[in-house]
Amino acid sequence: MLLMRIGAPGAEKPVVRVDDTRYVDVSDLVTDFDERFFAAGGPAALAAPVAQRVAAGETRPFGTERIGAPIARPHQILCIGLNYRDHAAETGAAVPDEPILFTKSPNTLVGPFDDIRIPRNSTKTDWEVELGIVIGTRTSYLDSPADAAAAIAGYVLVNDVSEREFQIERGGQWSKGKSAETFNPAGPWLATPDEIADVLDLTMTLDVNGVRRQTGNTKTMIFDPYFVVHYLSQFLVLEPGDLINTGTPPGVGMGHNPQIWLQPGDVVELSIDRLGTARQNVAGPR
Amino acid sequence: MLLMRIGAPGAEKPVVRVDDTRYVDVSDLVTDFDERFFAAGGPAALAAPVAQRVAAGETRPFGTERIGAPIARPHQILCIGLNYRDHAAETGAAVPDEPILFTKSPNTLVGPFDDIRIPRNSTKTDWEVELGIVIGTRTSYLDSPADAAAAIAGYVLVNDVSEREFQIERGGQWSKGKSAETFNPAGPWLATPDEIADVLDLTMTLDVNGVRRQTGNTKTMIFDPYFVVHYLSQFLVLEPGDLINTGTPPGVGMGHNPQIWLQPGDVVELSIDRLGTARQNVAGPR
Repeated sequence: MLLMRIGAPGAEKPVVRVDDTRYVDVSDLVTDFDERFFAAGGPAALAAPVAQRVAAGETRPFGTERIGAPIARPHQILCIGLNYRDHAAETGAAVPDEPILFTKSPNTLVGPFDDIRIPRNSTKTDWEVELGIVIGTRTSYLDSPADAAAAIAGYVLVNDVSEREFQIERGGQWSKGKSAETFNPAGPWLATPDEIADVLDLTMTLDVNGVRRQTGNTKTMIFDPYFVVHYLSQFLVLEPGDLINTGTPPGVGMGHNPQIWLQPGDVVELSIDRLGTARQNVAGPR
Repeated sequence: MLLMRIGAPGAEKPVVRVDDTRYVDVSDLVTDFDERFFAAGGPAALAAPVAQRVAAGETRPFGTERIGAPIARPHQILCIGLNYRDHAAETGAAVPDEPILFTKSPNTLVGPFDDIRIPRNSTKTDWEVELGIVIGTRTSYLDSPADAAAAIAGYVLVNDVSEREFQIERGGQWSKGKSAETFNPAGPWLATPDEIADVLDLTMTLDVNGVRRQTGNTKTMIFDPYFVVHYLSQFLVLEPGDLINTGTPPGVGMGHNPQIWLQPGDVVELSIDRLGTARQNVAGPR
């Protein structure tokens, strides 16, 4: 099942994607794809009514409505740093012994085609295509990575936008460069795990102004999604609807020589197999 | 005005404290002390009805009901590290040039008399008495620290519980040691700014098992609350109801020689002038 939210910011309607041109409206069945929805069973509870509506021809065409992030603002956005061997190498960092955790403010979440806004006083705004995990169940102290699959509601395409000066040169903890408004475009849809043949073999790409900048595959992840969820559950409690950005493959702006930073007017286009394509225009500071 | 929430976890009722023994129930006027409440005007909107009820004798005695955190789970918990000169010294760290930002999971928030639960596999659970700021207004890009006062809904007593091995020895970003369940007791009340003569002259103490471990005063803060709110607003958007822990004075367990860590059965008692006293029993891992 592919979950989407369409409509104006703050007034998105939950729908289920049927194909490229049609969706089923489920806004009469669920308020939103939020913590309560996932805690109450999430996508599984929608399977029967959605199948009925499709069979009855009760679908609608996608129009020109804005596509929002496929989940409501989560309780937390957790991120794993340096989780691809080749990306760690390009930043000059050692491959970590265990996952590096940092966070983004939850209100950074925006739609997949919304603008990325460069923060005031920024000179080093950068891109990161990532596989996002959405948590389905309140999760703590999992016994093993194998137990993590049951805690995952689905996957989503994310751009973990980053301001490298704020992140690295302004006081030592990464969250400072990860939390500006618009810094977490996500979507266009959440894919439930059954939609993905092998989450450890997904090609991911990111272009800036039509030039390919990132090419990767989830098979080069250091810590896979199941390990990440199991690991995090030893340190904190994951809530339904929480988002985990699992790290980026090589090709970020910081890794180029000379380094490349996003500028107003740039266009970023990113995609991951099965998770669709997103495109963000880069806007100047407010 | 002093805001409190009383009742079972997850079912707290918003009330206004009149004195040590009495409160005014405002649960018919507001759903909770949450993002919506603060965005809609917050404590100021309660002043007239609460005054009326006090005048009419419509108060109730505090009974034995549990006291919860005085705010609902916030959108984010931001923390400032090493924000007291003498605490920076005891940890062996340099005084920072600008505020160090890290975060805690919002679901760490618990009541001021709830248990602190030691995480599994923890050997270095530590305490930190702190002044917490609660944000009243959606805030971004403040022009100056002087503008921050209008964005602050009030102050609260916080224990920024920390696991030092998880924080420092397990991969480099502090959030990993700050986010275990029960790691952010807060309260007993939120005091609006008018209740506090000088927020830069508040004595703060913390005892463990009756032994004084921390003694400090907000006048030794490096970055005061107005500077902190102004500063953070340059990097991210603060939402109504967000909590900012502003750092701890000397005397944490890590700063002792030999170091001291919390053990099951310990009792932590902390207080800040005007913000009351909290007391937490330390429980073993789940």
